[in-house]
Amino acid sequence: MQLTKAHAAALQDILTWRRDVRHFRTDPIAPDRIARLRAAMDLAPSVGNARPWRVMQVDTPATRAAVVANFERANAAAAKAYTDDRRRAYDALKLAGLREAPVHLAVFTADNPEEGHGLGRQTMPEMLSFSTVCAIHSLWLAARADNIGTGWVSILDPVALHATLAAPPHWQLTAYLCLGLPARTDDTPLLHRADWQENTATPWQVV
Amino acid sequence: MQLTKAHAAALQDILTWRRDVRHFRTDPIAPDRIARLRAAMDLAPSVGNARPWRVMQVDTPATRAAVVANFERANAAAAKAYTDDRRRAYDALKLAGLREAPVHLAVFTADNPEEGHGLGRQTMPEMLSFSTVCAIHSLWLAARADNIGTGWVSILDPVALHATLAAPPHWQLTAYLCLGLPARTDDTPLLHRADWQENTATPWQVV
Repeated sequence: MQLTKAHAAALQDILTWRRDVRHFRTDPIAPDRIARLRAAMDLAPSVGNARPWRVMQVDTPATRAAVVANFERANAAAAKAYTDDRRRAYDALKLAGLREAPVHLAVFTADNPEEGHGLGRQTMPEMLSFSTVCAIHSLWLAARADNIGTGWVSILDPVALHATLAAPPHWQLTAYLCLGLPARTDDTPLLHRADWQENTATPWQVV
Repeated sequence: MQLTKAHAAALQDILTWRRDVRHFRTDPIAPDRIARLRAAMDLAPSVGNARPWRVMQVDTPATRAAVVANFERANAAAAKAYTDDRRRAYDALKLAGLREAPVHLAVFTADNPEEGHGLGRQTMPEMLSFSTVCAIHSLWLAARADNIGTGWVSILDPVALHATLAAPPHWQLTAYLCLGLPARTDDTPLLHRADWQENTATPWQVV
C-alpha cells in the first residue's frame, strides 16, 4: 500500500501534539477505547516477531496506593541529587499523575520468550525490552490520536513494583504508564516550558 | 489540539503497513526526505527531555563493508544455535538488507548526557536507551508514512561496530538501521509469512 501526504501530515500532528502527560482529568476511559490501544500494541515491531510485552492494567485501589507510595519514596530519594536552584526547580515539577489518571498500566518484558526462537537477540539481548518500548510508543501515539494522554513514570523502584504486582519472575518491568484525558494539550514538552531542559535538535553526522 | 478520527485512521494505516524491511531497492533517497525523518526524531519523547540519541549516517563504502562483515560473522555464529528443520528455516531467512539499502544509520545513546539533568533515570537508567528507541520508532513511522522502508539489524557485534565507527566512548549502540524504498509492501510481518513465528496478541490482564 502506498501511503499519502495526508498520512504524513496526520502523523506529524500526532507526533507534535503527543506529550508525556502529568495533569489528567479523572473521567474514566471507555473499555472500547482501551481495547483499541491494546490493538495498536499488536502492530508494534518486535525482534524475531517475539512480541515480548506483557501488560497489567492496575485497577485495585490498594495496589495503586502502593505504587503511589513507591513513587513518593523514589522521588524523595531522587530529589536529594539536586541542590539550590536546581533543587527548588525539581521540587516544583509535577512528575507523576498517578492519583488522577483513571488508567494505570504496568508493562513488562518477558526475558526469554519461546516466541521468536531467539532470532535477532543473541548479540543484543536488550532487543527484547527495546521491542516492548516500540509497543509502548505505538500505544502512546494511538492514545494521542484518540485524545487520550499518556504519562510514563520512571521514578519508581522497579524491584519493589515487581513485588507489589506479584509479577512472574521472568518478567522485567519496562514501564509504568498513566492514561486519561489530559487537563490541557500542548505542542511543547512541559520540561521545556518549565525551563528544566530546553528542546535540542537531533545530533546527526555523516561518516 | 483535538485530533480527529482521520488522524486515528491514518495512524492505523501507518502502523498496519509498517514492516521491518529486508528487501530494498537501491534507488537513492533524496536528502530532504532524510531531513524530515531527522525532524521526526526531534519530536520523540525522552526521559527528562534529555534527547540522548546520536545518529551516524554511514555513507563510506569501506565502513559499510565492515558492517556487512560484522553481520555475516554474527549471523554465522547465531545460526549455530539451531538444528535440523529450525536451522534450515533460519538459513532460508533474509535477515539484513545491508547491501541494497541506500541509507545506513547507526543510532547510539549517550550514557550520561548533561541534558535532562538526571531527571527520571536514577532508579531506571535504561530510560536513556528506551528514549532512543522511541526516537527510532518515530523515525520508522515517519519513514513508512513517506513510503520509505526501514530494517532494524540486531545481528551484529555492538562492540566491534562501535570500534568500526570510532564512536565516542560514552556512546552505546542502540540500533543499526537500513532505509530505502521497499521492494514490496505488506500488512503482515515477514517472519509470520515465513512460518518462523506467527503473530500473537498482546497479553493483557486486569489486576
